[in-house]
Amino acid sequence: LKITILGTGSATPSLIRNPSAQVLDDDHGIYLIDCGEGTQNQLIKNKIKLTKLKNIFISHLHGDHYFGLIGLISSLNLAQRNEPLNIFGPKGLSQIIQIQLKYSQTFLNFKLTFIEIDTYKVQNIFENEHITISTLPLIHRVPCSGFLFIEKPKKRSIIAEKLPKKIEPHEILTLKNGNNIYDLNNKIIYNFQEFTTEPPLPKKYAYCSDTAYSEAIIKHIIGIDLLYHEATFRNDLAERAKKTLHSTASDAAKIAQKAEVKKLIIGHFSSRYHELDVNLNEAQSIFENTFLAIENETYNI
Amino acid sequence: LKITILGTGSATPSLIRNPSAQVLDDDHGIYLIDCGEGTQNQLIKNKIKLTKLKNIFISHLHGDHYFGLIGLISSLNLAQRNEPLNIFGPKGLSQIIQIQLKYSQTFLNFKLTFIEIDTYKVQNIFENEHITISTLPLIHRVPCSGFLFIEKPKKRSIIAEKLPKKIEPHEILTLKNGNNIYDLNNKIIYNFQEFTTEPPLPKKYAYCSDTAYSEAIIKHIIGIDLLYHEATFRNDLAERAKKTLHSTASDAAKIAQKAEVKKLIIGHFSSRYHELDVNLNEAQSIFENTFLAIENETYNI
Repeated sequence: LKITILGTGSATPSLIRNPSAQVLDDDHGIYLIDCGEGTQNQLIKNKIKLTKLKNIFISHLHGDHYFGLIGLISSLNLAQRNEPLNIFGPKGLSQIIQIQLKYSQTFLNFKLTFIEIDTYKVQNIFENEHITISTLPLIHRVPCSGFLFIEKPKKRSIIAEKLPKKIEPHEILTLKNGNNIYDLNNKIIYNFQEFTTEPPLPKKYAYCSDTAYSEAIIKHIIGIDLLYHEATFRNDLAERAKKTLHSTASDAAKIAQKAEVKKLIIGHFSSRYHELDVNLNEAQSIFENTFLAIENETYNI
Repeated sequence: LKITILGTGSATPSLIRNPSAQVLDDDHGIYLIDCGEGTQNQLIKNKIKLTKLKNIFISHLHGDHYFGLIGLISSLNLAQRNEPLNIFGPKGLSQIIQIQLKYSQTFLNFKLTFIEIDTYKVQNIFENEHITISTLPLIHRVPCSGFLFIEKPKKRSIIAEKLPKKIEPHEILTLKNGNNIYDLNNKIIYNFQEFTTEPPLPKKYAYCSDTAYSEAIIKHIIGIDLLYHEATFRNDLAERAKKTLHSTASDAAKIAQKAEVKKLIIGHFSSRYHELDVNLNEAQSIFENTFLAIENETYNI
């Protein structure tokens, strides 16, 4: 599981930051999370293979999180996409996209499906053989949801050099599933413990886009590998954060600390901050394993 | 009158070009013409004073000409704008903007007015003491209008060193208006020809965004100072231009030649062209005074 950051800015435009967007890659597919204005250019710049993109998740309908979506959809269509595309987002998004397709007389070559999410509930909204994705209710001025990505348990890893030459593919699969292979007398021929090692633990990633400090999310993200949490302000603007239902660097760090996550990345920085050392120090003084979101960087989870 | 080019690209996104947008400046105000995705960043980059912006003109509802508008409006609001803003564009635009303001729960601090334009007629849609703006029907896949900007006749210029010291301000104004000043015996005291020179001729600029080759526009742009005409393709893709209702560099040049305009700028280049020398040569072989639109350049008209 790895995450590429495409935007680290907030609502006020800035020439040094792009608005929110990230790409999660689980080796089987990619998931676009939020899509601020200019995201399609960021995708091109980062050489993201858009044929692998089948699912887009929009946290809320503030422009810095979705104004780039209609442009991306239009461009996918121009690029002759025919693979279906799913968009998960709050009520209103399908209407916004559809009216724009209508007036541009755009007839999509691919099937576009909107999945309306209930931003007030923790709900499993996506599942395939590799990953499960749930909503994570956030507190903001409009309906807003974070997303929790949990890998499915992986199969055990084969120790290739120990493997007998005459073993059959279905027998390998059995061992990878953690089951032994027996003969007719119920005697173990191949012991899975001998030929395989423990699989890596399933990774967990949470994306908390725009939110006031909310302890309600903690129980859903206990011990996860990586938490991305917005940190629009520093502590000296805590009042402003409260008023606008945003978080400070300290707020993000407190959530990370209380949830005992392994690592925290902070982002969604106010355009008033050019240098971010102070923001990082503020968070690290509470939760040491904090990192700044950096655009066009990929983080292994 | 001067024009700053913010975008020279077409629908397919490109890292080397922005989508269509231009700013016309008549020293009294600025006019934004089209507003593709990322235009607000281009406006910041070019240090355009947005307090001077009161009128926006959208040629048609293809995304590369307006997807940046909602972001610009949102940012103007974040920047505490309270001056009214007028948007001239085809049917549908107000609905598209309003639904996005609704779901983001954005309440504008300023008065936003939509003026629906009839893209099939030449109509005077804007007039103040300095400029007149008309629609210019174009031929495209969706309702599409160019815009013709005509300066109002200017007052005559005073020859400062000739001016008598005791002359009154209202007398100066009379001379600038091209009228003499008489005494009670109807004898000329000040002859306007003596104290003023001819005013500069009113400048004329036409913007033809997306259009098939259309001789119908010629009669409206005869002899204008500057024509901006799309030139998406080169002549070897003339069939594709016809099919998609776009123009080639040759098409744009033919229009310029037949309308006997003073100068032609071509833009809206297909993303397939990295170097544009061939495109320029193609147009110049028909109409010599052709220039390529270059982003972030300002052209005096």
